Amino acid sequence: MTARQETRLADGRELFYFDSEPGADRSAPDRRVDLPEAETSSEVRWNPLFRDYAVIAGHRQARTYKPPADRCPLCPSRNGSSTEIPADDYEVAVFENRFPSFSLKAAATVPLVDVPPFQSGPGDGRCEVVCFSSVHEDSFAHLSPARARTVIDAWADRTAALARIDSIDYVFCFENRGEEIGVTLSHPHGQIYGYPFVPPRFFRAGEAMRRYRERTGECLQCRMLDAELSVGDRIVAESAGWVAYVPFAARWPYEVRVVPRRHLPDLPALDDEQREDLATIYLDVLQRFDRLFDTPAPYIAGWQQAPVRKDRDVWHLAAEIFTIRRAPGKLKYLAGSESGAAIWINDVTPETAAARLRGEMVGD
Amino acid sequence: MTARQETRLADGRELFYFDSEPGADRSAPDRRVDLPEAETSSEVRWNPLFRDYAVIAGHRQARTYKPPADRCPLCPSRNGSSTEIPADDYEVAVFENRFPSFSLKAAATVPLVDVPPFQSGPGDGRCEVVCFSSVHEDSFAHLSPARARTVIDAWADRTAALARIDSIDYVFCFENRGEEIGVTLSHPHGQIYGYPFVPPRFFRAGEAMRRYRERTGECLQCRMLDAELSVGDRIVAESAGWVAYVPFAARWPYEVRVVPRRHLPDLPALDDEQREDLATIYLDVLQRFDRLFDTPAPYIAGWQQAPVRKDRDVWHLAAEIFTIRRAPGKLKYLAGSESGAAIWINDVTPETAAARLRGEMVGD
Repeated sequence: MTARQETRLADGRELFYFDSEPGADRSAPDRRVDLPEAETSSEVRWNPLFRDYAVIAGHRQARTYKPPADRCPLCPSRNGSSTEIPADDYEVAVFENRFPSFSLKAAATVPLVDVPPFQSGPGDGRCEVVCFSSVHEDSFAHLSPARARTVIDAWADRTAALARIDSIDYVFCFENRGEEIGVTLSHPHGQIYGYPFVPPRFFRAGEAMRRYRERTGECLQCRMLDAELSVGDRIVAESAGWVAYVPFAARWPYEVRVVPRRHLPDLPALDDEQREDLATIYLDVLQRFDRLFDTPAPYIAGWQQAPVRKDRDVWHLAAEIFTIRRAPGKLKYLAGSESGAAIWINDVTPETAAARLRGEMVGD
Repeated sequence: MTARQETRLADGRELFYFDSEPGADRSAPDRRVDLPEAETSSEVRWNPLFRDYAVIAGHRQARTYKPPADRCPLCPSRNGSSTEIPADDYEVAVFENRFPSFSLKAAATVPLVDVPPFQSGPGDGRCEVVCFSSVHEDSFAHLSPARARTVIDAWADRTAALARIDSIDYVFCFENRGEEIGVTLSHPHGQIYGYPFVPPRFFRAGEAMRRYRERTGECLQCRMLDAELSVGDRIVAESAGWVAYVPFAARWPYEVRVVPRRHLPDLPALDDEQREDLATIYLDVLQRFDRLFDTPAPYIAGWQQAPVRKDRDVWHLAAEIFTIRRAPGKLKYLAGSESGAAIWINDVTPETAAARLRGEMVGD
């Protein structure tokens, strides 16, 4: 039974400890008494041509950039050092990002633009950091199933909490792992973004699931999962409640979807058994990514949950995990076709990717 | 008057020389008599959930990767060496990519999938390489206006030619510059992709322009350009026929649109005067990018033209040029929010970016 304790950092930001058992002492206060409130100026601008949002967060240029290990802000506070986490140990800790892309205070500081066809609004969302382990050299793939379960409970708890904030329309739990994708803090951690809008990629997915439901009475993702299971050659791992597969139209060299067999909208909707099961298959998939190359794969993992107030009846939860490494020492760069035309060219066939993730030897 | 000469490479691929004056001798044959036809297996897969295409091009893993300068395949063939360009000199040369993401031969080699809801088709498009200069160390920003004009004529000529191919629905002329974005050949060159579909990003832009036209009688991009000119603080450069500006909702740290004042659908529609004018302002903008940092900026530049068979009446041509460098030595990485949720977080305000591109000193 995951236990939660709450506190506040010296500048007023919230912090939550999640422990697998109640009773851990996490009462240490933040001793950085002189910590000034960080500036936030997040602005959301609408692009009417591409029907897309851009988030302008000019204050973030000053954020912490690859600090040495002994100055890591995500390690617990020990031996007189004061980090972002006041306790001298923790299992999972979640706190508001000091350099957030969104902030509930943005509304007060951002001047709005209304020169048609330009439209902007404050970036009044929320950005949280999720520390998976107090051990600096750890990684998600090496967590115990019990710890992974605590992370899942933390994700579900924070998803439900952010969904209760009026301005937040979408909660995205994700992890960036590896310097190759720009991670500036190597301590094992993920992030949660509470967007003040539904990201268009997910807005369109919601529309697609709704239209498919109206047309066929079925869930599009249930249908896609059934098709993957019947074809079979892109399946990576299966458990009682979950399936991990490389999607038919994968964009990335190695891309996996982890999908519950039962139709459920988001992480808070998972029952105890589904969470235990997920902890095991999720770790299994991350370990498969780490075995692909000579060194652990850089990856991005994100949870595609139902929007907070929309399409909840038609949405089917899924995790998307992918690496940008296409071969040892070679990265998949996003160049003209990907970044300019938004069309991904994938050099690794999904069937080959799945076979390699299953551990089969496959020639180029 | 740009002159075009055509030939074929030893494996049957087409090559076109574009010269500023007729009469240059480009008749040298390709002496690589043993050059085998390259394998192509391009497949387009539809993702019904995200309403997006993925291009699976498994054969491209073997493509040329950062050859030494004396083995550059884009230099002219000299001193007994045989490159992709048989002539011993050239101004602008365009040829079919030996390792293409799309190929008109794909239809014959790719087995199609029809297991609903999966759908795939052959990648029966075309990929061309555009060499801007025979000088290996050159760059677009350093071309003469006359040479830039020849490149523009080559783009326009190839756009019109690819539009005549039945299976091609969209022609995208672009340049990737810099190792940071994965360029594997440093010789100054760009690419042209003839997609066998309209990329969804441009499909949506066409729909937005059509709806705006129906609602207001006006062109959305004309309206956006007027608004930029009236606000003024994001304008980077102006000429008689063109405006270069950082868009209101820029996604990238430094992003510029180069837009004709007159409403025109694509590069072939530009008249002589507009092309001359474009050559000058386009070089000016690229030089501004090169002055932003201590070393030349890595950038992606692409032409947003009207689709071949759709929305031609409502479309307004534009070039989009952006760098992924956000500060000296720091890149903008696409991580969880960008690659997972397709929401860009931009750390540089568009107004600051425009001021820096204008050469004004601006604090962080």
